[in-house]
Amino acid sequence: MERVAVEKKVLNENDRVAAELRQRFAEENTLVFNFISSPGSGKTLFLERTLEALPQDTRVAVLTGDVQTDNDARRLARVGFPVQQITTAGACHLDARMINKALAAWAGQRFDLLLIENVGNLVCPTSYDLGEERKIVLLSVTEGEDKPLKYPGAFFKSKVMILNKVDLLPYVPFDMQTARDNARRINPNIEIFETSCTSGNGLPEWNAWLRLQLALNQKEVSAHA
Amino acid sequence: MERVAVEKKVLNENDRVAAELRQRFAEENTLVFNFISSPGSGKTLFLERTLEALPQDTRVAVLTGDVQTDNDARRLARVGFPVQQITTAGACHLDARMINKALAAWAGQRFDLLLIENVGNLVCPTSYDLGEERKIVLLSVTEGEDKPLKYPGAFFKSKVMILNKVDLLPYVPFDMQTARDNARRINPNIEIFETSCTSGNGLPEWNAWLRLQLALNQKEVSAHA
Repeated sequence: MERVAVEKKVLNENDRVAAELRQRFAEENTLVFNFISSPGSGKTLFLERTLEALPQDTRVAVLTGDVQTDNDARRLARVGFPVQQITTAGACHLDARMINKALAAWAGQRFDLLLIENVGNLVCPTSYDLGEERKIVLLSVTEGEDKPLKYPGAFFKSKVMILNKVDLLPYVPFDMQTARDNARRINPNIEIFETSCTSGNGLPEWNAWLRLQLALNQKEVSAHA
Repeated sequence: MERVAVEKKVLNENDRVAAELRQRFAEENTLVFNFISSPGSGKTLFLERTLEALPQDTRVAVLTGDVQTDNDARRLARVGFPVQQITTAGACHLDARMINKALAAWAGQRFDLLLIENVGNLVCPTSYDLGEERKIVLLSVTEGEDKPLKYPGAFFKSKVMILNKVDLLPYVPFDMQTARDNARRINPNIEIFETSCTSGNGLPEWNAWLRLQLALNQKEVSAHA
């Protein structure tokens, strides 16, 4: 069998599991975000700040993927919400089956929000649907404005871009407008937040947006009920 | 056929082509480095600075891989040495066949040094031998000290680590000693250079080391002649 054919078969199987997950998330009214970025763009700290700002009665869970180590899970667990590390042991992305298996450990629990931190990689995670409501791509200002053009898949498939580490703008040759323009060339409707997890800049806007999404997701359910 | 089996077959085929390349590089006395890093760690600027510092009579060529765009090739070509972009159109790494094909365009030319800039990714490029003499991993100080532990393959397989963007140390929570220790936990013999391509820090040491490798490679040939 050709490699391409096998790759296609693996993706079809992934899509089948992802569709089941999506159905389940809809039934249980769980809003699911899949965070994608390069290694070192600040995903884990961004999620820590996001979790800290959520009302304590939000039923939120986190799945965090890495090739090796459970460092991120240990960091995120400090905030007090349930967290699981998924160690891919070499694989460069999470897949729907890994999510399914991890969720089995929380059987019987319902969540309002599930945050998935994918493996640090702008290429492979793009191809694997995890049943999420949306992908969110993080780009830190130390990485260069050209990344949306070089890794178009990640930016095309994401509904939100977080331009992170804006506190470092004075020290790096990064033009915010070019970065925004590049992202919109690939994906004209992408929503953009500009954040720093050290200075706190932009986090109130992001957190307000997240609460709005949660409220809308609840309302949708009430409307259907 | 199982996915794992196909993956293995693809890697075996890659190893075969890589072995041919390695044989050819030895015969033509070409020193080949394969640069691996996250997107945005500063590979391209590092290679620009490296090329600028080489004696003009060095016969050097550059292959630069990206998922999309030929931005890097255009940047690198300014320095005046032959450069080719390899666009992988979705693939997350270069493979030996891509290198072979690109080199065909330079048939009849001999090089002292071939620099290969892999696709920005700390996972997939690690599995694909390109016939290089050594892999070199770049880690920028904005990415966090934990990366050698999270992406051990890249650091285990590299003989050199470039700790880049040290000019940003005052503005980021990055501990150099922890980063060095983590890299050496994975690879006790890894050589480490600490560089900034904006301030120029550490580049003289790197450039001197590179000239030494070139001289040693020439000497080896003379000894064999």
